[in-house]
Amino acid sequence: MTTTLIRGGTVVTATGRSQADVLVDGETIVAVLAPGSVVLGTDLSRAVHTVIDATGKYVIPGGIDAHTHMELPFGGTAASDTFETGTRAAAWGGTTTIIDFAVQTYGQRVMDGLATWHEKASGNCAIDYAFHQIVGDVNEDSLQALESLPDEGITSFKMFMAYPGVFYSDDAQILRAMQVSARTGMMTMMHAENGPAIDVLVGQLLAQGKTDPYYHGVARAWQMEEEATHRAIMLANLTGAPLYVVHVSAKQAVEQLAAARDVGQNVFGETCPQYLYLSLEEQLGAPGFEGAKWVCSTPLRSKAEGHQAHMWQSLRTNDIQMVSTDHCPFCMKGQKDLGLGNFSKIPNGIGSVEHRMDLLYQGVVDGQISLERWVEITSTTPARMFGLYGKKGVIAPGADADIVIYDPNGHTSIGYEKTHHMNMDHSAWEGFEIDGHVDTVLSRGKVVIDDNQYLGAKGDGQFVKRGLSQYLI
Amino acid sequence: MTTTLIRGGTVVTATGRSQADVLVDGETIVAVLAPGSVVLGTDLSRAVHTVIDATGKYVIPGGIDAHTHMELPFGGTAASDTFETGTRAAAWGGTTTIIDFAVQTYGQRVMDGLATWHEKASGNCAIDYAFHQIVGDVNEDSLQALESLPDEGITSFKMFMAYPGVFYSDDAQILRAMQVSARTGMMTMMHAENGPAIDVLVGQLLAQGKTDPYYHGVARAWQMEEEATHRAIMLANLTGAPLYVVHVSAKQAVEQLAAARDVGQNVFGETCPQYLYLSLEEQLGAPGFEGAKWVCSTPLRSKAEGHQAHMWQSLRTNDIQMVSTDHCPFCMKGQKDLGLGNFSKIPNGIGSVEHRMDLLYQGVVDGQISLERWVEITSTTPARMFGLYGKKGVIAPGADADIVIYDPNGHTSIGYEKTHHMNMDHSAWEGFEIDGHVDTVLSRGKVVIDDNQYLGAKGDGQFVKRGLSQYLI
Amino acid sequence: MTTTLIRGGTVVTATGRSQADVLVDGETIVAVLAPGSVVLGTDLSRAVHTVIDATGKYVIPGGIDAHTHMELPFGGTAASDTFETGTRAAAWGGTTTIIDFAVQTYGQRVMDGLATWHEKASGNCAIDYAFHQIVGDVNEDSLQALESLPDEGITSFKMFMAYPGVFYSDDAQILRAMQVSARTGMMTMMHAENGPAIDVLVGQLLAQGKTDPYYHGVARAWQMEEEATHRAIMLANLTGAPLYVVHVSAKQAVEQLAAARDVGQNVFGETCPQYLYLSLEEQLGAPGFEGAKWVCSTPLRSKAEGHQAHMWQSLRTNDIQMVSTDHCPFCMKGQKDLGLGNFSKIPNGIGSVEHRMDLLYQGVVDGQISLERWVEITSTTPARMFGLYGKKGVIAPGADADIVIYDPNGHTSIGYEKTHHMNMDHSAWEGFEIDGHVDTVLSRGKVVIDDNQYLGAKGDGQFVKRGLSQYLI
Amino acid sequence: MTTTLIRGGTVVTATGRSQADVLVDGETIVAVLAPGSVVLGTDLSRAVHTVIDATGKYVIPGGIDAHTHMELPFGGTAASDTFETGTRAAAWGGTTTIIDFAVQTYGQRVMDGLATWHEKASGNCAIDYAFHQIVGDVNEDSLQALESLPDEGITSFKMFMAYPGVFYSDDAQILRAMQVSARTGMMTMMHAENGPAIDVLVGQLLAQGKTDPYYHGVARAWQMEEEATHRAIMLANLTGAPLYVVHVSAKQAVEQLAAARDVGQNVFGETCPQYLYLSLEEQLGAPGFEGAKWVCSTPLRSKAEGHQAHMWQSLRTNDIQMVSTDHCPFCMKGQKDLGLGNFSKIPNGIGSVEHRMDLLYQGVVDGQISLERWVEITSTTPARMFGLYGKKGVIAPGADADIVIYDPNGHTSIGYEKTHHMNMDHSAWEGFEIDGHVDTVLSRGKVVIDDNQYLGAKGDGQFVKRGLSQYLI
Repeated sequence: MTTTLIRGGTVVTATGRSQADVLVDGETIVAVLAPGSVVLGTDLSRAVHTVIDATGKYVIPGGIDAHTHMELPFGGTAASDTFETGTRAAAWGGTTTIIDFAVQTYGQRVMDGLATWHEKASGNCAIDYAFHQIVGDVNEDSLQALESLPDEGITSFKMFMAYPGVFYSDDAQILRAMQVSARTGMMTMMHAENGPAIDVLVGQLLAQGKTDPYYHGVARAWQMEEEATHRAIMLANLTGAPLYVVHVSAKQAVEQLAAARDVGQNVFGETCPQYLYLSLEEQLGAPGFEGAKWVCSTPLRSKAEGHQAHMWQSLRTNDIQMVSTDHCPFCMKGQKDLGLGNFSKIPNGIGSVEHRMDLLYQGVVDGQISLERWVEITSTTPARMFGLYGKKGVIAPGADADIVIYDPNGHTSIGYEKTHHMNMDHSAWEGFEIDGHVDTVLSRGKVVIDDNQYLGAKGDGQFVKRGLSQYLI
Repeated sequence: MTTTLIRGGTVVTATGRSQADVLVDGETIVAVLAPGSVVLGTDLSRAVHTVIDATGKYVIPGGIDAHTHMELPFGGTAASDTFETGTRAAAWGGTTTIIDFAVQTYGQRVMDGLATWHEKASGNCAIDYAFHQIVGDVNEDSLQALESLPDEGITSFKMFMAYPGVFYSDDAQILRAMQVSARTGMMTMMHAENGPAIDVLVGQLLAQGKTDPYYHGVARAWQMEEEATHRAIMLANLTGAPLYVVHVSAKQAVEQLAAARDVGQNVFGETCPQYLYLSLEEQLGAPGFEGAKWVCSTPLRSKAEGHQAHMWQSLRTNDIQMVSTDHCPFCMKGQKDLGLGNFSKIPNGIGSVEHRMDLLYQGVVDGQISLERWVEITSTTPARMFGLYGKKGVIAPGADADIVIYDPNGHTSIGYEKTHHMNMDHSAWEGFEIDGHVDTVLSRGKVVIDDNQYLGAKGDGQFVKRGLSQYLI
Repeated sequence: MTTTLIRGGTVVTATGRSQADVLVDGETIVAVLAPGSVVLGTDLSRAVHTVIDATGKYVIPGGIDAHTHMELPFGGTAASDTFETGTRAAAWGGTTTIIDFAVQTYGQRVMDGLATWHEKASGNCAIDYAFHQIVGDVNEDSLQALESLPDEGITSFKMFMAYPGVFYSDDAQILRAMQVSARTGMMTMMHAENGPAIDVLVGQLLAQGKTDPYYHGVARAWQMEEEATHRAIMLANLTGAPLYVVHVSAKQAVEQLAAARDVGQNVFGETCPQYLYLSLEEQLGAPGFEGAKWVCSTPLRSKAEGHQAHMWQSLRTNDIQMVSTDHCPFCMKGQKDLGLGNFSKIPNGIGSVEHRMDLLYQGVVDGQISLERWVEITSTTPARMFGLYGKKGVIAPGADADIVIYDPNGHTSIGYEKTHHMNMDHSAWEGFEIDGHVDTVLSRGKVVIDDNQYLGAKGDGQFVKRGLSQYLI
Repeated sequence: MTTTLIRGGTVVTATGRSQADVLVDGETIVAVLAPGSVVLGTDLSRAVHTVIDATGKYVIPGGIDAHTHMELPFGGTAASDTFETGTRAAAWGGTTTIIDFAVQTYGQRVMDGLATWHEKASGNCAIDYAFHQIVGDVNEDSLQALESLPDEGITSFKMFMAYPGVFYSDDAQILRAMQVSARTGMMTMMHAENGPAIDVLVGQLLAQGKTDPYYHGVARAWQMEEEATHRAIMLANLTGAPLYVVHVSAKQAVEQLAAARDVGQNVFGETCPQYLYLSLEEQLGAPGFEGAKWVCSTPLRSKAEGHQAHMWQSLRTNDIQMVSTDHCPFCMKGQKDLGLGNFSKIPNGIGSVEHRMDLLYQGVVDGQISLERWVEITSTTPARMFGLYGKKGVIAPGADADIVIYDPNGHTSIGYEKTHHMNMDHSAWEGFEIDGHVDTVLSRGKVVIDDNQYLGAKGDGQFVKRGLSQYLI
């Protein structure tokens, strides 16, 4: 097997940084060494096949994006990235593992839904991937199926308090599924918005002729996210299920999570780059139909109300534990434009899988988070949260050699015309400038990105079975 | 230089665990290796001087006890452990670094106080040591002296809101010192109890003939700890100083810290083993004068009020970040008995430096905290909090080889007649049984404890200069 | 018209007490006078038809019980008190107004439901009565009907988050009804328990053979009350509706109300005597089927968890604003026994309309609340809350002469064999001893209770139209 | 004795309003009557000496200003209103009782201080007056003196956490005085600002040449008010003393009070008109030395931070219970100008005793508070809080005939050149326009203000002995 030595860099972990070299043998990290890599008199750099010079750069565990939706059917169309295009774009951006969502739709059997997703992904991915399971139809049969998922390496399932008639679970269903979660240790994931109430508001706004993308944000009021978040927390409190709330955007929802955590409940929250940088006023409220680019749920929140600033703070205080993308891209032409004249028909989703590591690194540059916290919220905690730690999320012997060499002196200009690899006809992040650059990416020991070139191949990525969460308190 | 390989163990960090071998060259860790220690075909175990078998055991960074008082003059006597006896006992218990307190007394110059402490410690310690600075007389001169301490490797100073006439600083003094803290990045440490109010209560209790040790706990009511904690937080809020509250014992004080942290303030809290295990009713209230063993300030709190259970929870939720001992031992005979008939004359302090790692490990066994959290609160966070990380607090190349091999299948019976190495005539922890054992301790590469033998020597330990805190948010 | 002078008593209001005489002319209070009742030289006591001596007694506005269910069809039977028997019992206990609930059942028109209730009550009541409207079927038609209710003197309507398939409204329905509430100023009343989730637990408990009354309390966990309370608050926050949560029993639900009130939201809560005095352990957990007497929803809560003590505190702090009974009596024989072997079949309800004033007065004797607060929570605030103030709830000229003369030196022994006037075969309050006594009750000027005799007649009581709430902040 | 009938008005109380006539006999209210004042056939209007027509107007209990400082020596000068001028101005504004502060200065005996204040006031006041006692020197002697004050009709005493070297009490002193408060039921009043810390900031600002009035507000940061408020609350919690915090201005201080009240502690807060209407930016920051007019402590707070809006909310939610003026007037010329070039030399105080009722009524017009709440916070609660209720604070038989007839259709333009009766050379409220007018004021039955004329005389006002607080929970 091929051996690689990453030399001269600064290894950054969730707790600190050190000058260290990293030795990779085949797909695995086999040693972390004092700089110079001379071990008991032997200069390892002469013994390996490849030496990568990381001088002046950060050597970090590859990013783990725990929330993506490749090829997801939604609103009469499907997310525009396939597993092939989406995972390749992820690799470009320093993400070496995604956890996508297998879907059980209403009336379908859980295992059939899972099989479909395995089929979509298998042999197509540029990087490793795992699955959460969406449960779109909680019933006796699907509850039983859930219990067998850990054997399949799937240790988390997601329900929706929104989207009545599509993915929606009512409280009786949620309670029963959470009982399974409590019994098995599987993580309950929740889309926390009060869908039935929101749909009333949607109908009223449309009836009033308020059809622009902006009203998507008005209808999905923060109160309805805060409420559902609290409801999920209390159902989890009652059942003892660990709970992970996805795509948290409202500061009041964060406060609910924080309060539950303060009393020792196993409750967690993820946010996404869009809730840190983008807003109701600026993006959703863009002139004409432009705002459609940023229609996603939960929606972008008002900057005047301070949600974005509070979300950065929550990352610092660990009231929010990690950042995923909720990557769910749609093209403006032929997809987003389904909602011209009716915001409720705009497919929900933003494409960000390529930019998460960069966007969050900019938070380091801007003084919002520390370098260590960047590694923690993008890789180490996602790994711990979803049972991947040891294999992923850490630079340590025995771990997969999923490694990113990040250059703090580099620069990345995000833009559709520049360096965009997601299968979309626009970028939701057009014009963002990043004071850093993903130089080299190793996926299980193979260099897949280097010097602005993609060196990998379709099928490099493998399905990864996950264990139970390693992050419970 | 001698080389050592620790083989077959489970390396535990603050974020996870992995099977890994650790290679030590001289005083320093030079590599962390995949199990087997065969690097590029070379079996390192054949090349090193010493191989330590850690199979089935935990390999962890040596404990850091960030709060000790060796030889501290107090109440007309002095803490009974010298730097020699105290650090040797620490080594026995798996602690490889202490941070003791140099003292500026009233009327004295800061640098003279510091020099005195260097003199006491130099050449006497079994393990490495660092200093915080106690400022007992905040004035123009001492404030200026504070600014130069970071150059001496001392990056934190402590003030007292208690003990009027001894160490007490009033709010004007605290404000001014905190301004230095904010300007320099030095950590303000605080003994947070409202001393002037407490002293009124002490006088009243004594006047009523309530002279037993129990009344020490009555006089130092939780309200007075909560109050002072809040006051320190607000003065820190005003000035921008980072604040670390020592020996937190009241749950209401924790809640004040938690509230400040929730809004992003750099506020931290330490607790001690006594506040996790011992109580006002059971220990301080022991018959006769027995309770004197556990007279310390802040005092043991009521179990009925739930402080101990809440403190464990706070360790889980990170509302309390770390555990030190506040080691300050006094013998019953000739020291504690100064307070026979007057609890206010009992020297304040408990000896625990030897048992912290064990007592906290029992928390792992009891399901109170995770194994990773044990390493975090006893070593990694203390290192980050006080500017030692990289050198201490982590198993990584470049770090000092301060390593503990801990056996989860071992057993430790704590008791004066059994295995007590602190210079006291009793144990405050008599009868505690620990389901684990400190097997081997390396201090900067040298095996100082092994097979229940002390192999080190006076003077092994060196003074360590510290940098600024690496833990701010 | 007949004139009455109540002389020598202490008039107690929500804010204080004074020695004063009260002059009644016909149905109305016409003057409140300095003791002695000599006005500009005329001794009124010689000019009136009747003089009542209230020396040494409290003269207070008649009690207003804002939550009763006379003759309510429920669970295949009906509440055992008719408007005749129930209002007569109320009079015995010093309550001179009830607000009962007219019911729109599923599929029925609101106005038809209301007409039915008018029919039941008209000509049968011993004291005045008003109606809230239960909306059991929120739809276009019923929403329109709500808007016309204020013209009928009905300014509040109630929905249920519990009882799916019976009274249950989902969040979409609640949102729409609350929009009517916000637009019209009508008060939204809410039964706040998560019914769908509770029903899952009920089914599981029964399946496990846990069929005793005690499990009624287990199934209806506090988390499900807290959750629904919070949800109602957030829907009210979103719509701007004033919200009144009925029969609050869990301290955590109180905390939700308190938090909303602290930020200035118009949110109110009522509790009932059973949540102040009775508990899950002692009453619901009584041996055999005895606990059925106290099956009501929300259920009695655990004393060990401290709900009762917290509820008294909430009355003191005004986090709970008033006390109603939720009077809904059922006999053990032929009614409660429908649930033998299946707690979910036990008709929900306790009979208390007769004892509310006494039970709360005992709180004054016990030091739980002040005398003024007693008047406030039993009469003045109910009047203000539901648009009756001025006519009811106060001793002032122009007000209806609904007056209770209460003897703090009297005594009342509650018990079925003793002085029980409700149409039940048992008392839920058997054995309660009250250090006070309802001596005399005037209803619109007519003495209906005096010297332990009922002097009134069926039909004395009239329907009272209510205005909008006078209690909003 | 003379008899007066106030006819046709709307009597407003803390809980509601009613059409009622008020009969006054001599100094006392003897009856509240149904409109028309025909009692048992007798038309009282023909029998009284005077009939006042209040048609279309509000009849309310006279205002009680519980915080004034007439003739107070401060900062080398003295408050410019004497008891004569200040109480006359109060009468003009509808205030019929003041509670001023007798002062014990350092080294003085309490009873001597009190005697001095009796001398100043006796025979000079236009309206009734009572005293709180300032304790400027807490020691054995003064603590004993406090215990005898209730016999003198003085049931509250005030301490200062600010002004070291002048009125300042340290925590030991406060604790001891609060023990007296707990034992006797006397109310502890507190000026809650951390004086020692503030004085450091003052010195630093002056040293930096920041000498303008604006920096008075900078030095007295909200953190130092919040801190002292919390400290006072905890000392009260420990001792059991009821606590009343004067002149609360920071929203964070309110939150501390609210939190203590939520758990049932007897803690109260007063605010003043200046904290509702005026701000750091607009008034204290006025160009040149103009800001000196509004130098008071606690200081005006930043509008951008939202203190004023939050304070109005706190009045609605009862987190703040009442409004006093802290009337302490100084002329610009010869007094305020002592601080030209040094803000710390500006005498602290604003003159408002004349305008409190009007300024708060404007809050009713603006929709900030209800009409009932206006009466409650300006008269009824002050009376209850300080043991005057029954005699003052209510329109009821037996009460002193302190009555204001307020015209909601009148108008009041506040301004020095217009209708200013305080002994100042400027108005702090220049330009405020009020949509209402004080038409007639009765003080113990005597009409002292009518038709914009002062009809009273020096010495009309008497000293009023107070009982213990009637407002505890």
